[in-house]
Amino acid sequence: MTSRTLHLNAFLMGVGHHEAAWRHPRVDPARALDAAHYVELGRIAERGRLDSVFFADGLAVGPHVHRNTQAVFEPITLLTAIAAATTHVGLIATASTSYNEPYTLARAFASLDRISNGRAGWNIVTSGSDAEAANFGLDRVPAHAARYGRATEFLDVALALWDSWEPDAILQDASSGVFADPAKVHRADHVGQHFRVAGPLNVPASPQGRPVLVQAGSSESGKAFAAQYAEAVFTAQRTLAEGQAFYADLKGRLAGYGRRPEDLAVLPGIVPFIAPTTAQARALEQEFTDLISPDYALRQLSGMLGVDLTDHPLDAPLPPVPPIDAIEGNKSRYQLVRDLAEGESLTVRELIARLGGGRGHRTFAGTPVEVADEIQRWFEQGAADGFNVMPPYLPGGLEVFVETVVPILQDRGLFRREYDGTTLREHLGLRPHVNRYAVEEAERAAG
Amino acid sequence: MTSRTLHLNAFLMGVGHHEAAWRHPRVDPARALDAAHYVELGRIAERGRLDSVFFADGLAVGPHVHRNTQAVFEPITLLTAIAAATTHVGLIATASTSYNEPYTLARAFASLDRISNGRAGWNIVTSGSDAEAANFGLDRVPAHAARYGRATEFLDVALALWDSWEPDAILQDASSGVFADPAKVHRADHVGQHFRVAGPLNVPASPQGRPVLVQAGSSESGKAFAAQYAEAVFTAQRTLAEGQAFYADLKGRLAGYGRRPEDLAVLPGIVPFIAPTTAQARALEQEFTDLISPDYALRQLSGMLGVDLTDHPLDAPLPPVPPIDAIEGNKSRYQLVRDLAEGESLTVRELIARLGGGRGHRTFAGTPVEVADEIQRWFEQGAADGFNVMPPYLPGGLEVFVETVVPILQDRGLFRREYDGTTLREHLGLRPHVNRYAVEEAERAAG
Repeated sequence: MTSRTLHLNAFLMGVGHHEAAWRHPRVDPARALDAAHYVELGRIAERGRLDSVFFADGLAVGPHVHRNTQAVFEPITLLTAIAAATTHVGLIATASTSYNEPYTLARAFASLDRISNGRAGWNIVTSGSDAEAANFGLDRVPAHAARYGRATEFLDVALALWDSWEPDAILQDASSGVFADPAKVHRADHVGQHFRVAGPLNVPASPQGRPVLVQAGSSESGKAFAAQYAEAVFTAQRTLAEGQAFYADLKGRLAGYGRRPEDLAVLPGIVPFIAPTTAQARALEQEFTDLISPDYALRQLSGMLGVDLTDHPLDAPLPPVPPIDAIEGNKSRYQLVRDLAEGESLTVRELIARLGGGRGHRTFAGTPVEVADEIQRWFEQGAADGFNVMPPYLPGGLEVFVETVVPILQDRGLFRREYDGTTLREHLGLRPHVNRYAVEEAERAAG
Repeated sequence: MTSRTLHLNAFLMGVGHHEAAWRHPRVDPARALDAAHYVELGRIAERGRLDSVFFADGLAVGPHVHRNTQAVFEPITLLTAIAAATTHVGLIATASTSYNEPYTLARAFASLDRISNGRAGWNIVTSGSDAEAANFGLDRVPAHAARYGRATEFLDVALALWDSWEPDAILQDASSGVFADPAKVHRADHVGQHFRVAGPLNVPASPQGRPVLVQAGSSESGKAFAAQYAEAVFTAQRTLAEGQAFYADLKGRLAGYGRRPEDLAVLPGIVPFIAPTTAQARALEQEFTDLISPDYALRQLSGMLGVDLTDHPLDAPLPPVPPIDAIEGNKSRYQLVRDLAEGESLTVRELIARLGGGRGHRTFAGTPVEVADEIQRWFEQGAADGFNVMPPYLPGGLEVFVETVVPILQDRGLFRREYDGTTLREHLGLRPHVNRYAVEEAERAAG
């Protein structure tokens, strides 16, 4: 265990994860619309030696136009701008397998990966909303299983395309006029149920071989998909016991795909309110809670649970919600919210307050030492390989984490003081990527 | 005419437009693979006060794996990296209407446009090769007319999406909790032959309203498309007379779409070999010609003309080529090459040398004054609003243009000494974009 290192990702969203962040005096709401804000956040994360920064994404406004502060920039372009202003921090973009083509998306990620010298990661999503479907010719979201079927084939194509160019394919021999060795540039020739893709990809491999694969769905299909492909998983876990169960479940599935536990990092989300005293931290959290607009929160909650709550009394418990099998959208979010409400017998008003910080991710108010203690506890007790840090307000909430919590984790020997690699794959302690054709050649050569 | 200003775009491609550039001692071929090279080119263009930089693109390797030096980066990501390192120069990316979805592509351009504070341009292509089709589930390239049909509907959707957010839609009123005015955020509700897209786009408008539209096809369909949509056109014209004819043709079509001649800038390509004396410039061009590899050039030429020339004798004239109606790919390139060969009775070897500099674009070897004279002549005699500058080698060929030709054009009062705006739309002297819904509101208010 001595060599095990904590992994920290900064999940960046607008001016903060708390839904009322933009109304708080610590925040300048105009920054959500300014690319320079996100570039500055990337620099802060790099100053804290974090593994990576990450953007969620959706392919539609809404459901509520009047509050949409989040999806102002497309993540791959925004992370490319951050790449140009940083040198080490990893860059993880969300993109959909349901509404992209493998060739164009694999290429965009390969391009970001080369531009950043090997720092790209892809958070793979299947896009669970009807609003997104309506932007791509569909009446409603495809069934959960169908989306994962397409996602699986999409990944197989993307992985083949990223291996198109062996690392030593490019010769650039000006005297002979040979630029690349054609024997080391491979077609994919994929023919499947959803895609036919010839290849090769027209982007050579990056210093980390291919982008790191990240996943965030905790449904059964999501966990199976993660066990097969993901190298990091973002997850929402409320308690240590639940975190331990999820961690053991996911790690236990890896062997079935010929993978080792250390081939996948489990990163639960944490929304930290940090202040010099515990009382001050709790008071800060309460300030944000008090700014929540109930009508907006009710609409968000309605979307998560698949039931209209907009006229439901705030001080009553939740009404009956549909069974999980009726949910075609985000099943893991649904389950999390339902379990929270039922497990703690919350009224709707209480539930809204609990969800305000991070939409179901764990909120924790405390001193820097208390936050570090909590991170260490989960890390050492089998619930986490690190954390998906979700600052409730930005940039201040990330700055205070980097300036006060990270040094404690460093002093305890849990977290790096300096980057010892340059690629995201290295930061996460993953094995180097080995090109599939180089493997074949080595095997042929060995006899 | 006194207020008319020349427009200059730097067309950037690998280590230069000459197909043998990477073998010349002035060039470091490894730079083609390095994003920092392109960022440096962006800075050089901005130092020269050029309107914009531009990348061509294709969605396949090839046709010849062993020489593919060009499509190493996806243009939108690469231009985002350049955006982060510059402040004024316009950023024009090529992207296909055949193999993208309008929502995702409109969003990527809107994101680049916001990140760059209003400097994005889109060179619209329909992707004319079988190799590209094979990466998107097709056996061969769709028919020319079908591709333009899809492109037209694609543009209508993209334009509607870019108008989703009126410029004053965002209120960000923290005290009332109102982020945006829902009445100023509009759905597209497009239902057409190729696409159904609900909208709104989840990126608010940029400082220039929407990306500048650029087009480069000179077929009949291409010219009709340009007259309807394009705000700048890249074109290959061999002689002043041909340039004048094309210019008059295209400008004459604009009124049919309710547009003025100054709503579209015509920018012919020029591949300038520049040296202190004419003889030195010609000798420099010859050095590059001597490095052309005939077998590679023959395969390129075969692709342009739709006939296999790989075993054809170099010192014979072209064999008969298919009629233009049989060409489903790049019709304008085909016509240019055929006219060049037939018009000047060239052997295949001579044709290859003529095409080596810029694949049919006009090559011009001369002193800085001679290059400036030629640019001025076309600009003043009705053949051009400016030029698409295609340096035969990079970065040197762009540096020498910026350092020796641009100052002459500035001294003659033909070209800006400083940027007088910040957006690409302003650089090109185009009218401000007016949001369609703002127009409707103004009309309602007036009526």
